[in-house]
Amino acid sequence: MNTVYIGQDALHELQDLLHNKAFSKVAVLVDENTLAHCYPLVKPYLPEHHLIQIQSGEAHKTLQTCEYIWQRMTELNLDRWSVLVNLGGGVIGDMGGFCAALFKRGSYFVQVPTTLLSQVDASVGGKTGVDFKGLKNHIGVYKEPVAVFIYPDFLQTLPQREIKSGYAEIIKHWLIADAEMFEEQRHIGLFTENWEELIRHSVAIKSKVVEVDPLEGGYRKVLNFGHTIGHAVESYMLEKPGRELLHGEAIAIGMLCEAYLSVKKDLLTKDALDKIETFLVSVYEKVPLTEDDIQALSRLALHDKKNTGATINCTLLQRIGSAVYDQPVTLPEIQEALRYYSLL
Amino acid sequence: MNTVYIGQDALHELQDLLHNKAFSKVAVLVDENTLAHCYPLVKPYLPEHHLIQIQSGEAHKTLQTCEYIWQRMTELNLDRWSVLVNLGGGVIGDMGGFCAALFKRGSYFVQVPTTLLSQVDASVGGKTGVDFKGLKNHIGVYKEPVAVFIYPDFLQTLPQREIKSGYAEIIKHWLIADAEMFEEQRHIGLFTENWEELIRHSVAIKSKVVEVDPLEGGYRKVLNFGHTIGHAVESYMLEKPGRELLHGEAIAIGMLCEAYLSVKKDLLTKDALDKIETFLVSVYEKVPLTEDDIQALSRLALHDKKNTGATINCTLLQRIGSAVYDQPVTLPEIQEALRYYSLL
Repeated sequence: MNTVYIGQDALHELQDLLHNKAFSKVAVLVDENTLAHCYPLVKPYLPEHHLIQIQSGEAHKTLQTCEYIWQRMTELNLDRWSVLVNLGGGVIGDMGGFCAALFKRGSYFVQVPTTLLSQVDASVGGKTGVDFKGLKNHIGVYKEPVAVFIYPDFLQTLPQREIKSGYAEIIKHWLIADAEMFEEQRHIGLFTENWEELIRHSVAIKSKVVEVDPLEGGYRKVLNFGHTIGHAVESYMLEKPGRELLHGEAIAIGMLCEAYLSVKKDLLTKDALDKIETFLVSVYEKVPLTEDDIQALSRLALHDKKNTGATINCTLLQRIGSAVYDQPVTLPEIQEALRYYSLL
Repeated sequence: MNTVYIGQDALHELQDLLHNKAFSKVAVLVDENTLAHCYPLVKPYLPEHHLIQIQSGEAHKTLQTCEYIWQRMTELNLDRWSVLVNLGGGVIGDMGGFCAALFKRGSYFVQVPTTLLSQVDASVGGKTGVDFKGLKNHIGVYKEPVAVFIYPDFLQTLPQREIKSGYAEIIKHWLIADAEMFEEQRHIGLFTENWEELIRHSVAIKSKVVEVDPLEGGYRKVLNFGHTIGHAVESYMLEKPGRELLHGEAIAIGMLCEAYLSVKKDLLTKDALDKIETFLVSVYEKVPLTEDDIQALSRLALHDKKNTGATINCTLLQRIGSAVYDQPVTLPEIQEALRYYSLL
């Protein structure tokens, strides 16, 4: 397990690490947003470094962007003892980690997640990768960063929509592992004043799961709750100009659909579903889905990484605070769940 | 360390493995040569499987070819429990291993090396990867195959030029680890009648080195003898239509240049260099190098993975049968070594 620093001291800790380890070179990966809003906050803590800038957004999480990053790393004469500082959200973290992991068969990287989503999710667990032909994270490797630095003040640079997106993964962590927090927080919702504490709690849940099963042989799949259908929704909408969803927005839809399936399979009570539904609908705007969307989405879900052959294996809830993985779900069931959502 | 099967039984062992493990699907990666000459020999031993065919040659060891392989793997509905059987030389083995290692963050693969070169080198040690903008194996990961199956009869399908190419890595193994074998075999050369034994001996040397230092933190670099300059020669010639060299042909040049540098740095005796020179020149045709070639080649060597910053770290010989790694070599020294070769 890598070290995760959370709090006001995080940037000092980053400074210490870059100072104390003998990296040959330091490069910082940014997009236009983190260059404008986050890089000025981090720069005073950095030693001499190079900048590599890419375009923001999931649409750029591709091998083509990786080729650009590798070309820049090559031009800057980075080597196996260099470190890439990934300053950004999940796209920068996943893709920067991937590029560092593969450059000359493995150079170093640290994660400095700047969105709530990447702070509570992408920065922990060692998953790196890119999308491929519309399939989310289809190409990737497991590789831990040297360390993760979570600076909560970055959240003040984020639009509300980004906060909501990250909040979905926080909710997911409650749903799969902490019923008490769910019960307490569902009444507070986005009005919380203690993000640092929520982040710490979420990172702790995720770290504990990943520690038990780093390569997702089994138990780690509990983290996939909401993601089998959610990833399909996210990939699908990415191809529909004007309808693109943020990751957490898609996962919120996935969680509703998969909670519905949990009831249908007699794992979860209708009462629990109602609570989840009321809460999620109060936070996330409804996304209209046509019958054509539902057909295409359900087929897309079949390509999800978490499937064996033609069966769709899903993580479902057995109660609020506890998930079960590898639950086989059929294509018609996925369609039914999407219809349930579209009729909410 | 993965299991390596060498000998007439290798294809039976492959059959047993594919039969005894519960892989979800089997796909075989071939090029036009291995499809024609090797696949017919292997097919009787395979369960139901799919074929993925790419074009042969180092020029196709690129991310673009990987994208094609990943697209085919996706279309065939392969998943994380599938196995890719890499039937071919170093390009197929390195690139197929790379594609399997990254597909859905890690599926399975086995190596069935069909060239002498890949049997004694690429199939052992867990290095996978592709070339990038003319730089050899610039992008890659360490990932061990499930097992390696070395069937010596494939050698009968190879042109003499391919045999010579693989023979260079065998010679390298003697030069870095077994003076006695070098002394014995340099008089026999390509007239040997016991390839299976030479392969077994070479695989044993390489396996022993890799076991000590799998991620090339230090000691494994002894295997890079001949490769700092050799890789530069190989990459450079790849861009010169009509002058392309096979890997071992380039490494033979690299070994001569680096043996020369070993003498220049008072590590190796002139007498030892003469022995190496006489033997290598008797096996490998001289490749003409102009002054322009030498300038370009020496600059290219600076980008080699095995360097820190502007220093070129080279593996040199301290005597026949023993190598030392991380020997700093300057640009003018590389140029001098290439001139030595060009004037042989």
